[in-house]
Amino acid sequence: MVANPGRRADVTRAALEILGRHGSRALTHRAVDSLAQMPPGTCSNYFPSRAALLLAMARGAFEQLAPDPARLTELERAPAGEALEGYAAYVVERLILRPDLARALVELRLEASRSPDVAAVLTPFLRQGLRADVAFHESRGLPGGAELVLLLHHLVNGILLDHLTVPLDPGSNPVAVARRAARRLAQDVGP
Amino acid sequence: MVANPGRRADVTRAALEILGRHGSRALTHRAVDSLAQMPPGTCSNYFPSRAALLLAMARGAFEQLAPDPARLTELERAPAGEALEGYAAYVVERLILRPDLARALVELRLEASRSPDVAAVLTPFLRQGLRADVAFHESRGLPGGAELVLLLHHLVNGILLDHLTVPLDPGSNPVAVARRAARRLAQDVGP
Repeated sequence: MVANPGRRADVTRAALEILGRHGSRALTHRAVDSLAQMPPGTCSNYFPSRAALLLAMARGAFEQLAPDPARLTELERAPAGEALEGYAAYVVERLILRPDLARALVELRLEASRSPDVAAVLTPFLRQGLRADVAFHESRGLPGGAELVLLLHHLVNGILLDHLTVPLDPGSNPVAVARRAARRLAQDVGP
Repeated sequence: MVANPGRRADVTRAALEILGRHGSRALTHRAVDSLAQMPPGTCSNYFPSRAALLLAMARGAFEQLAPDPARLTELERAPAGEALEGYAAYVVERLILRPDLARALVELRLEASRSPDVAAVLTPFLRQGLRADVAFHESRGLPGGAELVLLLHHLVNGILLDHLTVPLDPGSNPVAVARRAARRLAQDVGP
């Protein structure tokens, strides 16, 4: 079979849909071929190992979740204090619009905890993403450095995990919660 | 088969171990019987539905993760400001000592997002837990009310998800991170 980037992307998208919607139990090469409407063997041809498939899925998820440049330009105009809340709120906003993708990212992390092969490919990818976020944060002149960026990651992940599974407070708006929580986290802490 | 609470608890523990260690893909009635060293059919006898099994697992996980009364007494003596950080840090401390249980709790939430039956039993159980936490928080005279308790939940879950899967900053100590983040979150936010 000749490598075909469009086909490869279709396979990856189908795999993400299965993982996000039905969990790791349902993610088999066969199920991916079937959802992508490809001949049997296509998925395992592009991705011979589960780790290779999961890495492509992580890359594909981040591509699909990329921010809208117009929104980034808008956030660039905001003063530093508001920008930080704005970025955190915008991440949550993007992910809750794509709940299957957001759940698939949690599933990918859980798979990494169970499989050293998956951890070996996913860990450098996710850490590189964090470094890029820290670099952006600093180049934008935002306060708090790498520690605050990491705390915002944890907070956003916790808010999303709640909202996308069993919302503990069904009345709360996760985007507004992220905004308020980011404002609190960004405050200087006294001695 | 006569109902036997000890046997039921053994089955539940085996199910939690499978879910936390190998993910939802591996959690079958047959695998639970096998790990619990019970005759085939035992798990499905106690828990005819997956939802019933998962609810028992959630209850069992929280029982196994219950705080040590001596540590709670110690935290009761701390001033309100320090107590809040102390509680958040102690939750993280308990859960990272039981990584399989902590991962199983994430898996249980993901299952609830995929299955209305599971959501129907898990949601009231988890919300009741939150209400108990808010009541404790208020009776203890801690600041911030239900909103802060919920933010602390999100934060702790995000820290744990990171630490137990793909730690983005391998040098950081999740207990210390929880303590610092709780201190920041608990600050009053200006107008």
